[in-house]
Amino acid sequence: MSKHILVIGAGRSATVLIRYLLDQAEKNQTEITVADLQPELAASKVNGHPRGHAIGFSINAPDAAEIIARHDVVISLLPPALHTEVARHCLNSKKHLLTASYLSPELRTMDEEVKKHGLLFMGEMGLDPGIDHMSAMEIIHRIKDEGATIESFKSSTGGLVAPESDDNPWNYKITWNPRNVVMAGQGTAQFIQDGQVKYLPYHRLFTQTEKIKLPGYGRFEAYANRDSLAYESLYGLDGINTLIRATLRREGYCAAWNILLQLGLTDDQIKIPNASTRSYKEWLMSYLPSSGKKSAEARVAELFRLGDQSPILKKMKWMGLFSNEKIKLNEPTAAQILQQLMEQKWVMKKKDKDMIVMVHDFMIRKKKHKYALRSALVVIGDNSLDTAMAKTVGLPLGMLAMMLVRNECRLTGIHLPVMKEVYKPVLKELTQYGIVFTEKLRTV
Amino acid sequence: MSKHILVIGAGRSATVLIRYLLDQAEKNQTEITVADLQPELAASKVNGHPRGHAIGFSINAPDAAEIIARHDVVISLLPPALHTEVARHCLNSKKHLLTASYLSPELRTMDEEVKKHGLLFMGEMGLDPGIDHMSAMEIIHRIKDEGATIESFKSSTGGLVAPESDDNPWNYKITWNPRNVVMAGQGTAQFIQDGQVKYLPYHRLFTQTEKIKLPGYGRFEAYANRDSLAYESLYGLDGINTLIRATLRREGYCAAWNILLQLGLTDDQIKIPNASTRSYKEWLMSYLPSSGKKSAEARVAELFRLGDQSPILKKMKWMGLFSNEKIKLNEPTAAQILQQLMEQKWVMKKKDKDMIVMVHDFMIRKKKHKYALRSALVVIGDNSLDTAMAKTVGLPLGMLAMMLVRNECRLTGIHLPVMKEVYKPVLKELTQYGIVFTEKLRTV
Repeated sequence: MSKHILVIGAGRSATVLIRYLLDQAEKNQTEITVADLQPELAASKVNGHPRGHAIGFSINAPDAAEIIARHDVVISLLPPALHTEVARHCLNSKKHLLTASYLSPELRTMDEEVKKHGLLFMGEMGLDPGIDHMSAMEIIHRIKDEGATIESFKSSTGGLVAPESDDNPWNYKITWNPRNVVMAGQGTAQFIQDGQVKYLPYHRLFTQTEKIKLPGYGRFEAYANRDSLAYESLYGLDGINTLIRATLRREGYCAAWNILLQLGLTDDQIKIPNASTRSYKEWLMSYLPSSGKKSAEARVAELFRLGDQSPILKKMKWMGLFSNEKIKLNEPTAAQILQQLMEQKWVMKKKDKDMIVMVHDFMIRKKKHKYALRSALVVIGDNSLDTAMAKTVGLPLGMLAMMLVRNECRLTGIHLPVMKEVYKPVLKELTQYGIVFTEKLRTV
Repeated sequence: MSKHILVIGAGRSATVLIRYLLDQAEKNQTEITVADLQPELAASKVNGHPRGHAIGFSINAPDAAEIIARHDVVISLLPPALHTEVARHCLNSKKHLLTASYLSPELRTMDEEVKKHGLLFMGEMGLDPGIDHMSAMEIIHRIKDEGATIESFKSSTGGLVAPESDDNPWNYKITWNPRNVVMAGQGTAQFIQDGQVKYLPYHRLFTQTEKIKLPGYGRFEAYANRDSLAYESLYGLDGINTLIRATLRREGYCAAWNILLQLGLTDDQIKIPNASTRSYKEWLMSYLPSSGKKSAEARVAELFRLGDQSPILKKMKWMGLFSNEKIKLNEPTAAQILQQLMEQKWVMKKKDKDMIVMVHDFMIRKKKHKYALRSALVVIGDNSLDTAMAKTVGLPLGMLAMMLVRNECRLTGIHLPVMKEVYKPVLKELTQYGIVFTEKLRTV
């Protein structure tokens, strides 16, 4: 009897996932339903495949429960806040659920019930979170099996632009949710360093970065993610000396972003009146101390003690922050104005390729020897549809869905992919798609 | 027939107000009811006065409406969030209401109804807000009457410690709500400077201060209040070039407070686990980058490029931030830990006196001449009960209440004390209590 997989959400990020599922459908005797608010978008992704079905779908519509009930495995690509609703339907009709989002506290409370019904709800099954957990756990288990101790683990991931498409002074383009880029790091970062829990507030986050050099790919820098503490026990690393999860950018990005933050341009609370008739430069001036007839550039330089030729000023100028162009937004917040600029300037062009970089740095002690182990992944997108992001987020979801269809995964309850029975087959299959980590071990 | 005034709240800040009302009671044929959650506290303030009555009172109790209905004028000293509830009762039973708190948006919506019933709800009738509005308006009206133009108005107020009781390196003690001191400035300050609206985010607020020198009282510095924009039209200063309302501290305070803020110690979001068994120094270390065996002091100095002998380090040390004393709080936020330290260290001793400083700085143009006008108020407390704060907050409330009893104020609706009929008699009567502004005009 055929099994049925439901993919909710047919946006850009779903392309690779849907193609993988359709490619695997015949072999696994599976029917694939692609559901979206826009049925024509779903249809374009299914593209007439004999085992593919496109439907209109809204989680708030009366038929949502019934549609979910017709399938065996549900993959939700909806915004994180909507997963709880999908999960309730899955629980009611006893279906497995997979997402690439961080597990929410509400979802976690369903663990007992999910287990009782013999179901699996797998969260954080994309890239970051997702592949980061799986690749880290593969190494952590291996090191422990060898009788060694992990003293430090720093894991950094970035969704960036490929070197061949990197043509702006920020060395960055938006390859994922632009709102997340503007709001990145708001709050307080928490991690473990040298045996101590550390708190790093937003206004210092981009000044305490770690430099990372990858042969063949150049220089990067990493700023700490919001919460690394939860992963100490989840990764089985209780008592570890240093544990930091971080986000990668190209060298120089963080110093410039910090100036935007220090100015107040990432604020999302205060609404800016008259933004519809003011220019970006006039808006920027509102964040600078008055100082006679000096230009906006000169005032920024003065306030932050930057030289005339500072690469930060160059980045700001390129971004359009000193321009006389009108903002044309109605009562936006500063963050919304900045996002509009970013979406214009940091846009991926038709032929641009994106790049995923993931770096795990371990410090290991075995008997009296100390080693540094680096495991690194670089994935470059094929084109503007088959992006590195869409591949690395979509493939793990697709692979686990097919494992469930084939009854190759008997796990039940609410989980993250930290267990061997999940990461081993997924990481192995990922190598067929060019998603391969390379390791380097050196004595220190 | 006797009139009745109800004072809700008999805490420390009510002492002067209650004494004023009792002193005026006989002459004005008025009965004074002092209401508090603790009736014995109310009784101690009434102290057997023949026209005074002490009662237990809770705004949530079933008899609250009935108690309010028995009076003619209600003065609420409750926390600002509770004023709306008091206001509803006042509206139902048609009573005047006076508070010293900022008028909330909810209260403002009642304007029509309040007016319809011929009532006056007066907010911001204390010191700041209160005396600041009244004294500013007296000058603004006078300048306009003289045919001159106001180009700039900067108004700063501080609740400080009197010079004779100033014995710590911060030159500060807590004379009002300690929570407000820790949370001061969180958000984004908005003001007008050189013809432009300016936004100053919290993380830069304490670095952009204005120095103020008062002959006989020494040096102060002012940091901008949250919202100065609302006062442009309220003060009748539309189109003014510069308008800033600010808070005064002693010189050097802001630079040191900024370091606490930069470290992250004023954060009120993240709960700190294990704070009950950790020392202040261990907690502080969590906000500092790891750097070998260096002391907390050395790390702070390194991070913020301070010299060994920096007065900022001295202030932090005196505050107890480098001490091995245990915090003993259960899952507090950083702001709560800091507040606990401040309440211990910045405590007003029995014989300490407080000091209110208010400075209005105007730039005026009359024909072709330009003048700087400074109006300044310094009030020193008599003792720990008759503080400058209790006087300056309580007396305006009491004076307006008696004006209402004597039918000397016919104003109706929701208001702030910006009109001549209120500020003129109140400012005049305040001089009898030593609350006197001195003016200095100079050509520039």
